[in-house]
Amino acid sequence: MTRYDLALIGFGGVNRALAELIAERGDTLEAELGFGLRVVAITDLRAGSLVCTDGGAIDLAPLLAVAPGELDFSGLAGGSPDPRNEWVIREAPADIVAEATFTNPADGEPALSHVRWAIEAGKHVCTTNKGPVALHGRALQELARRHGVCFEFEGTVMSGTPVLRTARRMFGGLAVHGFEGVMNGTSNYVLGRVESGLSFADAVAEAQALGYAEADPTADIEGHDVQLKVMILANEVLGADLRRADVPCTGLSALTADDVRRAAAEGLRWKLVGSAARRPDGTVEARVAPVALPAEHPLAGVCGPVNAVAFHTDLLGAVTVAGPGAGRVETAYALLSDVLAVHERTANLAGAELLQEAGRG
Amino acid sequence: MTRYDLALIGFGGVNRALAELIAERGDTLEAELGFGLRVVAITDLRAGSLVCTDGGAIDLAPLLAVAPGELDFSGLAGGSPDPRNEWVIREAPADIVAEATFTNPADGEPALSHVRWAIEAGKHVCTTNKGPVALHGRALQELARRHGVCFEFEGTVMSGTPVLRTARRMFGGLAVHGFEGVMNGTSNYVLGRVESGLSFADAVAEAQALGYAEADPTADIEGHDVQLKVMILANEVLGADLRRADVPCTGLSALTADDVRRAAAEGLRWKLVGSAARRPDGTVEARVAPVALPAEHPLAGVCGPVNAVAFHTDLLGAVTVAGPGAGRVETAYALLSDVLAVHERTANLAGAELLQEAGRG
Repeated sequence: MTRYDLALIGFGGVNRALAELIAERGDTLEAELGFGLRVVAITDLRAGSLVCTDGGAIDLAPLLAVAPGELDFSGLAGGSPDPRNEWVIREAPADIVAEATFTNPADGEPALSHVRWAIEAGKHVCTTNKGPVALHGRALQELARRHGVCFEFEGTVMSGTPVLRTARRMFGGLAVHGFEGVMNGTSNYVLGRVESGLSFADAVAEAQALGYAEADPTADIEGHDVQLKVMILANEVLGADLRRADVPCTGLSALTADDVRRAAAEGLRWKLVGSAARRPDGTVEARVAPVALPAEHPLAGVCGPVNAVAFHTDLLGAVTVAGPGAGRVETAYALLSDVLAVHERTANLAGAELLQEAGRG
Repeated sequence: MTRYDLALIGFGGVNRALAELIAERGDTLEAELGFGLRVVAITDLRAGSLVCTDGGAIDLAPLLAVAPGELDFSGLAGGSPDPRNEWVIREAPADIVAEATFTNPADGEPALSHVRWAIEAGKHVCTTNKGPVALHGRALQELARRHGVCFEFEGTVMSGTPVLRTARRMFGGLAVHGFEGVMNGTSNYVLGRVESGLSFADAVAEAQALGYAEADPTADIEGHDVQLKVMILANEVLGADLRRADVPCTGLSALTADDVRRAAAEGLRWKLVGSAARRPDGTVEARVAPVALPAEHPLAGVCGPVNAVAFHTDLLGAVTVAGPGAGRVETAYALLSDVLAVHERTANLAGAELLQEAGRG
């Protein structure tokens, strides 16, 4: 039976949920997916690092029994109060690095370095971190190709909802001309509440009270989060190579509550839409902006924390994938689906190599 | 370069559109997908049969230049006025049989025999025909397994929209508890027009005038078409083995225009919903019935000819795929995606066999 040993970089909500999945249903997953999963290293800004170098795996249950804020690896065998990210990523005996630290939209660091170190060390990388993928995705994919490892990032757009993988695997033989997406749950929730009569300020406060919005909601409300997702999707699906400056971004502050309610009365719904389309000359134009959608638009009915992307294709017209846009378990599933993709690719590549050797490829 | 030779069974709208795709963009597809496509046999109830037995392929352009109703193969080399389906399917030098004759919901014939003959002759089969898949899918899959060939049928549910393949390939590690779908464009169009103020009779007449509804709209309006799709999806996604009698079916005649408009005034939208769910004891219950959906339901915004299926999963909640529900080009793309699946499976199986021989699997 194949087995993959994981190093978890960042032990916040997402990687903790992944560890819970492995601890609680590892056997079921092994039976279904055909491979076993173990965690052999964990690093975290606050808890430090924990590495198994004796060929064994980390016993996850005792770690998961400790409240997140109180976890401290320093007293444990193989533990250190220092995250030692570079050393752990390069030297821990892991097959796959699961990167889930915070997104930095300015330069993608430190996640960018985490991903680079893993690839350079010959390890597959799965990440939920938009920073490195949006800002340096093409260079990282090229680096992964040169090192013969996989670089997977389904969780960077709409958590575990298979958006990137649908575009990559389900559209063979189709031309994708562009896409439009509602890709931020917080702004979508706020717009829905404003439609129902709240002011923007009260709707944001409510979203914060419910845990949907961050203390500083700017990135969600003003479209900067969606901007990174548009870059990731456009680069992946349309073969673009967009910088942030190439994606003009208008947020919800461009709208008044009156705009929203007047549109609703006319059967239109304002949504914060991230979109990209191929121009006739082959280049790609992209933007983030509020758009008043007619009821029959595929994104008009996308409500609250649900997100959706409509892909525009030549033979099928619009094909839309909708699902959760965020959530720790939902995003941990994205990492699991990335590991599954690594498994499939590795198995198929090994087979293809043998086929080529045998002259049957 | 790999090449697949196709036999097209039924040369109505769908297989004709597939032939157009091959004739018009075969070279582009070959460059993108890594395999060539040729048509070596065609049969049709009215046109007869046409088979290349000299190692060549059928020149499609002249056939596609003739209006569908006027096509007659009898005067051509390799042609016959008789469809000779069994002989062509068994003996034509095809790798893949593309079955696109009419759906018979009673016993699935003659498509059922077409599919069986192909599998018995060691040929892969792709079909857009709901009859054999809904009524005998499990037996046919077992037969295909025994003969080492692929049996693909993406086009039986929502034409080329990748619904079956999403469930099969995108949900690894998830438990799917059930699904709900709006899977018939005609009934959905009619409901939308009744919401806008038409009577049911006028809405059906309009759908007929626009070519959305058949001369006899019963199968669409009364849910029998959706019933077959529910059986196909439930058998595929939930491992069920449902007969038609297991899927109670209520159609739109159970509704009055007043019901529809009263609900709309309350923010609810009636949809003809096909659904299935796993019961606590592991068995599956399924039904087709009109349901008044609240605005935030993932299917409430599915309008007109767009169809959608929402899959209910443990880790992601609802994941919805929406796209065209019908159309000749859209359904021909389903066949193309089936051929692509045959290609991928064949390549991976050949590799896996070699891996196993090499002791690395």
